[in-house]
Amino acid sequence: MAEVPLTIRDPAALRAAVGASRAAGRRVGFVPTMGALHRGHGSLVERAVAECDDVAVSVFVNPTQFGPGEDFARYPRTPEADAALLGGLGVRWILAPAPDDIYPPGAATRVSVEGPALPFEGRARPGHFDGVATVVCRLFHAVPADVAYFGAKDWQQTLVVKRMVRDLGLPIEIAVCPTVREPDGLALSSRNAYLAPEERQRAVALFASLEAATAEWQRGADVARIELAMRSVLVARSVAIDYATVADAETLAAPVAGRDAVAIVAGRVGATRLIDNRLLAARRGGG
Amino acid sequence: MAEVPLTIRDPAALRAAVGASRAAGRRVGFVPTMGALHRGHGSLVERAVAECDDVAVSVFVNPTQFGPGEDFARYPRTPEADAALLGGLGVRWILAPAPDDIYPPGAATRVSVEGPALPFEGRARPGHFDGVATVVCRLFHAVPADVAYFGAKDWQQTLVVKRMVRDLGLPIEIAVCPTVREPDGLALSSRNAYLAPEERQRAVALFASLEAATAEWQRGADVARIELAMRSVLVARSVAIDYATVADAETLAAPVAGRDAVAIVAGRVGATRLIDNRLLAARRGGG
Repeated sequence: MAEVPLTIRDPAALRAAVGASRAAGRRVGFVPTMGALHRGHGSLVERAVAECDDVAVSVFVNPTQFGPGEDFARYPRTPEADAALLGGLGVRWILAPAPDDIYPPGAATRVSVEGPALPFEGRARPGHFDGVATVVCRLFHAVPADVAYFGAKDWQQTLVVKRMVRDLGLPIEIAVCPTVREPDGLALSSRNAYLAPEERQRAVALFASLEAATAEWQRGADVARIELAMRSVLVARSVAIDYATVADAETLAAPVAGRDAVAIVAGRVGATRLIDNRLLAARRGGG
Repeated sequence: MAEVPLTIRDPAALRAAVGASRAAGRRVGFVPTMGALHRGHGSLVERAVAECDDVAVSVFVNPTQFGPGEDFARYPRTPEADAALLGGLGVRWILAPAPDDIYPPGAATRVSVEGPALPFEGRARPGHFDGVATVVCRLFHAVPADVAYFGAKDWQQTLVVKRMVRDLGLPIEIAVCPTVREPDGLALSSRNAYLAPEERQRAVALFASLEAATAEWQRGADVARIELAMRSVLVARSVAIDYATVADAETLAAPVAGRDAVAIVAGRVGATRLIDNRLLAARRGGG
């Protein structure tokens, strides 16, 4: 599979190709993206290529997951660089649809998830996860793969997608892959491109807040103390905090003794909103 | 295919069976029902059996499409009669899931359709079409058939399902089959079982209102005049009108010149709410 990927615009055409591949007994992997690909996406694709016979990558900046005041118009679009990156990785198909191919004229259907979609990003970005669930549901019908790969960087998104897949009985496995980081710990994100050099330096505070949360968690601190530790790191670097806390890793409700938790943070560095998280192994003390 | 149908509770097991059948080149048809089967359902199943190699019928009284004050608890349930009817028709599989099989604990996903779902039943029964779209989406993943059969009696429902299928790219064809009627014109409905003998006589007013609408439509009457004709028939039989009008057959907006329309009616006969409709061929005059 070192061939050049075939770029397909029509979801139905890709569906047919994926179906033929699976009918021939081949395992198909799918990596949905919004383009502006970085090494984080690269790690998803590499794992997909390692585990599957054929891999499809979609590149679609989904308008419905951006709110009115958000960065849809200026979201980075780097089609040549994306193609170059994917060309070397052994991807078989690139799905590059136009908006009308995903949302036909008169489209009126929305997939909504409650539960894990409600707090954090759900509260900060009304409608965001409806847009995510709807487009992922649509894409999973265009690419009926065995397995789809998502990055742990968007932890809440992985929970929303897994819940939707379970609830609607979608016949696809969800694989969650580790966050890829810069040497100083900053999680890779297409939005890092927005950061001025001085902001880039301050942005490491999100990672540092997760380190602080981990230390507090491991020494048995309660939620209030963990939040305080996270906030002091973020405030010191002038990050405007959206949320910074620990939650149950699966439900995102308050942490529960004996279950994994997640430290989760969102904040603005200048005009750029960044998110990050880290999984925390279950402890006896719970929250 | 004159064998006894195999009753399956587990959606995943049926999915596997349907997949194996299709992989062997067989055409699979699906008839989703809420049980309490009558000759209307029978006609859907007969057409499915005629057109397909294998047919699955689901029997599931879907709680989420009933509103708080509606008849979920007393909706007719006739499992023995249903099995007897289906046993003679050449059905291969009956999917009879428990509520937990369709809505797993913690289920938090809803499929919503706007557009054709908003007027008429959407207004009269808030949440009804969310329940329909969600369960049909779920069932289509349990029964990945080539084609699913729905009755024209629930015209708006067929529009909602078709819109969802198109918008989410669900790989299934939707076939809409003619309404089956009693000799006096009353559309068959599981809810007709609620009618006392005197109510049963008055219930023919819904059909009669569609006859009146058709006559007015064909003579070129405007919407107001058509509605008046429908209402005078319904009032004469003491049917409490929910709505009685004509609409574009596909969008359910106001009728448009040169496009098909639908006469559509809902009302209560005693405590029983009934609906009916009739397709009206396009005319030059439109609305």
